[in-house]
Amino acid sequence: MSDTTSSHHNQFANKAKAWSARFSEPVSDLVKRYTASVDFDKRLAHVDIQGSLAHAEMLSAVGVISAQDYADIQRGMAQVLTEIEAGKFEWSLDLEDVHLNIEKRLVELVGDAGKRLHTGRSRNDQVATDIRLWLRGEIDILVDLLGQLRLALAQLALEHAGTIMPGFTHLQVAQPVTFGHHLLAYAEMFGRDAERLVDTRRRVNRLPLGAAALAGTSYPIDRERVASTLGFDEVARNSLDAVSDRDFAIEFCAAGSLIMTHFSRLSEELVLWMSPRVGFIDLADRFCTGSSIMPQKKNPDVPELARGKAGRVNGNLIALLTLMKGQPLTYNKDNQEDKEGLFDTADTLRDTLTIFVDMVGGIRVKADAMRAAALQGYATATDLADYLVKRGLPFRDAHETVALAVRACEERGCDLSDLTLEELRAFHPDIQEDVHHVLTLEGSVASRSHIGGTAPERVRIEAQRLIDQLGRAA
Amino acid sequence: MSDTTSSHHNQFANKAKAWSARFSEPVSDLVKRYTASVDFDKRLAHVDIQGSLAHAEMLSAVGVISAQDYADIQRGMAQVLTEIEAGKFEWSLDLEDVHLNIEKRLVELVGDAGKRLHTGRSRNDQVATDIRLWLRGEIDILVDLLGQLRLALAQLALEHAGTIMPGFTHLQVAQPVTFGHHLLAYAEMFGRDAERLVDTRRRVNRLPLGAAALAGTSYPIDRERVASTLGFDEVARNSLDAVSDRDFAIEFCAAGSLIMTHFSRLSEELVLWMSPRVGFIDLADRFCTGSSIMPQKKNPDVPELARGKAGRVNGNLIALLTLMKGQPLTYNKDNQEDKEGLFDTADTLRDTLTIFVDMVGGIRVKADAMRAAALQGYATATDLADYLVKRGLPFRDAHETVALAVRACEERGCDLSDLTLEELRAFHPDIQEDVHHVLTLEGSVASRSHIGGTAPERVRIEAQRLIDQLGRAA
Amino acid sequence: MSDTTSSHHNQFANKAKAWSARFSEPVSDLVKRYTASVDFDKRLAHVDIQGSLAHAEMLSAVGVISAQDYADIQRGMAQVLTEIEAGKFEWSLDLEDVHLNIEKRLVELVGDAGKRLHTGRSRNDQVATDIRLWLRGEIDILVDLLGQLRLALAQLALEHAGTIMPGFTHLQVAQPVTFGHHLLAYAEMFGRDAERLVDTRRRVNRLPLGAAALAGTSYPIDRERVASTLGFDEVARNSLDAVSDRDFAIEFCAAGSLIMTHFSRLSEELVLWMSPRVGFIDLADRFCTGSSIMPQKKNPDVPELARGKAGRVNGNLIALLTLMKGQPLTYNKDNQEDKEGLFDTADTLRDTLTIFVDMVGGIRVKADAMRAAALQGYATATDLADYLVKRGLPFRDAHETVALAVRACEERGCDLSDLTLEELRAFHPDIQEDVHHVLTLEGSVASRSHIGGTAPERVRIEAQRLIDQLGRAA
Amino acid sequence: MSDTTSSHHNQFANKAKAWSARFSEPVSDLVKRYTASVDFDKRLAHVDIQGSLAHAEMLSAVGVISAQDYADIQRGMAQVLTEIEAGKFEWSLDLEDVHLNIEKRLVELVGDAGKRLHTGRSRNDQVATDIRLWLRGEIDILVDLLGQLRLALAQLALEHAGTIMPGFTHLQVAQPVTFGHHLLAYAEMFGRDAERLVDTRRRVNRLPLGAAALAGTSYPIDRERVASTLGFDEVARNSLDAVSDRDFAIEFCAAGSLIMTHFSRLSEELVLWMSPRVGFIDLADRFCTGSSIMPQKKNPDVPELARGKAGRVNGNLIALLTLMKGQPLTYNKDNQEDKEGLFDTADTLRDTLTIFVDMVGGIRVKADAMRAAALQGYATATDLADYLVKRGLPFRDAHETVALAVRACEERGCDLSDLTLEELRAFHPDIQEDVHHVLTLEGSVASRSHIGGTAPERVRIEAQRLIDQLGRAA
Repeated sequence: MSDTTSSHHNQFANKAKAWSARFSEPVSDLVKRYTASVDFDKRLAHVDIQGSLAHAEMLSAVGVISAQDYADIQRGMAQVLTEIEAGKFEWSLDLEDVHLNIEKRLVELVGDAGKRLHTGRSRNDQVATDIRLWLRGEIDILVDLLGQLRLALAQLALEHAGTIMPGFTHLQVAQPVTFGHHLLAYAEMFGRDAERLVDTRRRVNRLPLGAAALAGTSYPIDRERVASTLGFDEVARNSLDAVSDRDFAIEFCAAGSLIMTHFSRLSEELVLWMSPRVGFIDLADRFCTGSSIMPQKKNPDVPELARGKAGRVNGNLIALLTLMKGQPLTYNKDNQEDKEGLFDTADTLRDTLTIFVDMVGGIRVKADAMRAAALQGYATATDLADYLVKRGLPFRDAHETVALAVRACEERGCDLSDLTLEELRAFHPDIQEDVHHVLTLEGSVASRSHIGGTAPERVRIEAQRLIDQLGRAA
Repeated sequence: MSDTTSSHHNQFANKAKAWSARFSEPVSDLVKRYTASVDFDKRLAHVDIQGSLAHAEMLSAVGVISAQDYADIQRGMAQVLTEIEAGKFEWSLDLEDVHLNIEKRLVELVGDAGKRLHTGRSRNDQVATDIRLWLRGEIDILVDLLGQLRLALAQLALEHAGTIMPGFTHLQVAQPVTFGHHLLAYAEMFGRDAERLVDTRRRVNRLPLGAAALAGTSYPIDRERVASTLGFDEVARNSLDAVSDRDFAIEFCAAGSLIMTHFSRLSEELVLWMSPRVGFIDLADRFCTGSSIMPQKKNPDVPELARGKAGRVNGNLIALLTLMKGQPLTYNKDNQEDKEGLFDTADTLRDTLTIFVDMVGGIRVKADAMRAAALQGYATATDLADYLVKRGLPFRDAHETVALAVRACEERGCDLSDLTLEELRAFHPDIQEDVHHVLTLEGSVASRSHIGGTAPERVRIEAQRLIDQLGRAA
Repeated sequence: MSDTTSSHHNQFANKAKAWSARFSEPVSDLVKRYTASVDFDKRLAHVDIQGSLAHAEMLSAVGVISAQDYADIQRGMAQVLTEIEAGKFEWSLDLEDVHLNIEKRLVELVGDAGKRLHTGRSRNDQVATDIRLWLRGEIDILVDLLGQLRLALAQLALEHAGTIMPGFTHLQVAQPVTFGHHLLAYAEMFGRDAERLVDTRRRVNRLPLGAAALAGTSYPIDRERVASTLGFDEVARNSLDAVSDRDFAIEFCAAGSLIMTHFSRLSEELVLWMSPRVGFIDLADRFCTGSSIMPQKKNPDVPELARGKAGRVNGNLIALLTLMKGQPLTYNKDNQEDKEGLFDTADTLRDTLTIFVDMVGGIRVKADAMRAAALQGYATATDLADYLVKRGLPFRDAHETVALAVRACEERGCDLSDLTLEELRAFHPDIQEDVHHVLTLEGSVASRSHIGGTAPERVRIEAQRLIDQLGRAA
Repeated sequence: MSDTTSSHHNQFANKAKAWSARFSEPVSDLVKRYTASVDFDKRLAHVDIQGSLAHAEMLSAVGVISAQDYADIQRGMAQVLTEIEAGKFEWSLDLEDVHLNIEKRLVELVGDAGKRLHTGRSRNDQVATDIRLWLRGEIDILVDLLGQLRLALAQLALEHAGTIMPGFTHLQVAQPVTFGHHLLAYAEMFGRDAERLVDTRRRVNRLPLGAAALAGTSYPIDRERVASTLGFDEVARNSLDAVSDRDFAIEFCAAGSLIMTHFSRLSEELVLWMSPRVGFIDLADRFCTGSSIMPQKKNPDVPELARGKAGRVNGNLIALLTLMKGQPLTYNKDNQEDKEGLFDTADTLRDTLTIFVDMVGGIRVKADAMRAAALQGYATATDLADYLVKRGLPFRDAHETVALAVRACEERGCDLSDLTLEELRAFHPDIQEDVHHVLTLEGSVASRSHIGGTAPERVRIEAQRLIDQLGRAA
């Protein structure tokens, strides 16, 4: 080996040089900007360095580079990291992306050792590795935030296990439920969202490095070693697939769309509950804004924005699906478009989760308004039907009998519980004095005590179960 | 209990009666058609009956209905099923959906026992249960088909473990790869698709029944018993959530979009490979069609359609996401729109998978054309660079040296392997006689023998591993 | 010319024969079903025949076929049409699509003249023509329905030009508005929707016929003549583009997504207004359904479904955009997937519009509830601020002064109009006795009488203008 | 009027103050960032000032503010603009958006006159006006760029009016076409795209200002005057609609999706044509990049990225459609999410168009490769069929005869033109010596000379027509 063969210049001095001596024409500024990704992919700097160090360690271990080279690379990368964290790193559009920017600086700092770093890899497997490392970290943060949100929901649910509100179907009053039960519905949704992210993580956590440009490399690399260093569960088993597919990113974006869809539903309800005609809750001022013209306004901005942000994450999902549609193997430049949407979905999820963890704790419940609303709309009609069934009527006949009673109440402008026993018996002779218990809100909810039911007793069990489970984790 | 209280008519005689005696105005024919779902949800008949029988069995076990009622319901449902399978069942738009159609017929057949079936449940939890039962079955079929497809790919890969073709990035010749390796890339993709479906199945396989309309029921139901009868892994733990969310369906549709995205990529390549300028393969005639005007045409219709069908499944995904966006709890009629898109995605997946299992087996490989193409485009340039690195050049310098050599070849219209040793040494003095081995296609692919690499030896191992694994399953 | 050269058999006897004698292998049943379109494209039969007759007329006029041939084709097509309308036409999956089905039957009926029909055209330009003819007709129907809907909205608006309701921003009470004004907001939206369809129609109404398979034809065709016969505004000026682009269909689907988005907003409000806590309106029973379990329910099914159907049309839009992404010229089989989504969007629009025209007329307004809601939430706070500005305060100072007054009212649980003059003057000394007029709902709405404002006077003018304009058209 | 009533402080000192004195709790930093838009809406600064000046001019003209106030506002805004253009304006996240930032600075600069600017308007109509002014300007730029691109295509088409290439359907060789004709297909597509933008502009160019928060204003404003000052075609006729709908933005995004879909198709072809197996063209180096590992690569990055960017614009479209779905009237905070996607689509279109105008001019055509490809695949089979038809065969019989001839050629590995007259006559006795003319590429294309056909003569006419039309405009 002879170092004298090494050129004395740094090929990264400009971008065209960076990839090939065979280009004769420089790219225009617009083309440069159009094709560069450094503006948005520099957030991958930490994982890029992490991945490079693991690669260098392996190259040294298998003897492709010397121990000194590895030490030089470590030293150089430490310096690069320091510069980046201090905000002193000079990012250059000419160097196209985060990878070339860092590599160029490394070569400046440590010379030939830096030039040896890219041995046995390519930007194709490098970027695929970086994005997986980054996404794995994001998933871990999001799963933790989902746990915090579910804990906040469960705590509020425990507090309101016995607070009665109308349960709606079709936004019509259907049956009385407890507010705690309503909150736990969202705890279930966000629980499944966390499950999905954990499942996605398994497919994210596979190592592409070693796939090189597309076919693997002729160097005697040890991919298992790199996977172990970086905490990957396994290595990607096909190089062509490893550098070109982005299904893990799309799967994440789809999971993100479901999370934001759940937020859009919760937000819709928060906005509705804040509306003066409903008035079930009040949100803390810090999640609301006022109006530039109407001095009396207090607007639930945060839930409205969260509802609107369901749009952008659905958009990011479609962007990635469109991107991959019909792409032949292997890497095509189209794939550079995978990042901004992915980053935006992760950021949107993180911000929204963080704010909601805080906001849920600040919900002020107006129990009187909830109760008043539950008393409107014949919410216990089903209970009356069930009462009749228990006395021997086939369900369909009981259903019809109660419908007639409701119709009579509507005409008289009263509730079922306002009818006297005699009036009720006019609809069916089997009705007895005990009927009035089933017509109360408390009687109605208490009777639904099976798993999944709205009874306060059941809500307390479920809320406590979640608190125990999630509180431990926190 | 007195049967004399039972009305003598069947309330299902028309739809308005079916739900309530309190309606005064009939719906118009257009409204009827607009709101009815029986045209598309009748495919749920089998699972609807399966769910009803499990529910009735439980009602009987806990004493809500009598053993005789259960026996009557069993007898009636057997008759209904016979009629449906014989195509003699009279589906009525007036009865809106599959559930009311079946229940009405049951009441006709067995009277009051039929009217007791709906005790302790609602259409809301009934339809949520049906759709999960149905989807679980579809997932099992699709996972099996994905296995068959991967087996077919692995078998063809084993056959072509040594067939060399150009590996492309940016549709430019990058490095030689083996056709077997290329096929295994798709086996990996479809493998992850199967994983995703298996993960989705876990969230599908939870029992909503018992949630009733939204709040649970006052009957002493045993949900665990029903879950066990129907093979559900667990019961849904919140009734409001159970009747209103459709995230499991969206998750399935997202997994389906990824499957079809993978098919769109494979199809793009099949179409490209069939194009006369490329000519890498030929598809069996039965997957192609001709032209109404050009007598010479043989068009790869099946892959083109599969590529196009990526559109409809992406559309179904967005349809469901739009549908759920901003819906307040709990069930809203919007949710009726969940089925057609879901059915269409499942059907599209099943048909496409079935056809491709057959079609992959019928691919005729034109190895000569593949090899000729691999010889075009300096596919072994990276190998020359690696050769220089192994002789001590830093990678970046080696890369630049080879770029100059390629440029010279381009000007002379020859390949790297056409250069004499002397000519090569003009670019770098360390080049020796052994260089010509690394410049051959065979030498290039053979050198990439690590896990994930394109070497014939490695492809054989991977293909055999898949065949062993999937063949056993089949 | 010699008829003796004509073969005695009908090549359409099976599909493979229909396109080419060079195929050796029959397609399987699944492939047949996968690739056939006749199940859904037979709805194009009328326009297919219309287009064929115009083509035949032109062929005859320029002498490519004889007058007798044309007469035979006319006679045969009349028979085909009769059979289709009588439901006696035998559609065959073997013949793949509507075009081959009709052509085959024509040849059975009129022999060689039928075989000459396809001279100078191809299925590619034929199907592109059919779909444009069909879509043009749909657009005309939809534009008419949009006019009817706007008329219904304007009539109800005129009736309720003076009915006061709360105007919401952020679902908070903002300022009083009139219900008529609110309705006219939707008349504006649907008006723009109609404009968009009219613009789309211009791009739909261009004739592809004559493009043949892709390159035009060597026959001396007269495309202007065909365009004139069929009522096309102009001829497509590039054959490659004419057979392969579907942007006109995507543009229609995008316009359809906006229409359904507008319906989703109106529906959201109808559902909200029907909710008992709001109670602003009641919908006629025929647009509602009940519950299988809750006898008291009256659910606004139609607006809920319409809101949900925004999903399917967004899905169809994305399906078509995905379909066309990255397709090389010219016709690819992918394009067969353009129809189902397009048909579904058109059907959804037609049904929804038809139902809403009827439903809007059946809205029962509960003016008392609207007025009561408008009195809640300090709706006239802006009027007080404007009052102060007119007395010399800069707007920003007035805004701040009123905010303090609102805060005081909130603490006391009263409205601004409940404050005495002295109390109001404590916030600002320039307030005079005339202030109480601006704090009334009537004073507030009446003062906004400029173009676009909510004043009853202005609403009457706008509603009448629409009625005059649209009533005339009807 | 008394200035003594004016407060001496600037209410914009912090955001909460800016809207209302009634808030008691400050927002957190995250909430601030989550709800603020100034980071992305500051690009509206120019149109915001333009709109404010037109509003102030009108207020002064109708006497709501004094001439001195208007002069102060003009002076202050000139200063604000200078500061912004010089990069010295201090944007504050506390002030939430571009509107409050500018207004606060204006008040600092000119005092009470600045506080009077917001009289008779609201942020709701202000932002709706700003975004329309901005979008109108973008549309004008894009329409111009589309014209430039079509001119570039037409110029290249004129140059290659006689260059023969294979016309593809299903990526199979179908019939010979000219490269000029192929280019003009894209000129047609982009022409319709420009039409769509012009149509969209009509709906964008309507003035919302005067709608105030939602209901209009009690000031005697003159909306027609403002419309005229700002160049709007008309005023929005309903205040509720004016502040809340964003259909014009969605319509623009849909038009943008079609433009990028067309680019995705053109890009797909450019990438394909650059692939060595096809080799029809070469792109100038400045639109390509190399590889970090493969020294020989020249990758068509720009068309690949443009193809990929179809994803982001489809995503933006879906984001906006999701956003608006189900929003009740009028303005909701969700709408703040309308901007980023809209901006991104406009930027993507502008960059892509600008680059392609340049890139199309730099396409190097390899006519020999095109011709060689056209000779492959029996491209003139249709011409032979037409030849037979002109000699009296019904088209369907001729089609079948030629299919047999093609099959024979395939078996012998030759082209139709390689068959001798005798061999051809074996398939049909009516074939004469003149047949060989129709079997040449030149004969084939020349015969398609009608409007829309591929004949060189016709391509020259069409290209020249476009050059005349677009060159004049430029």
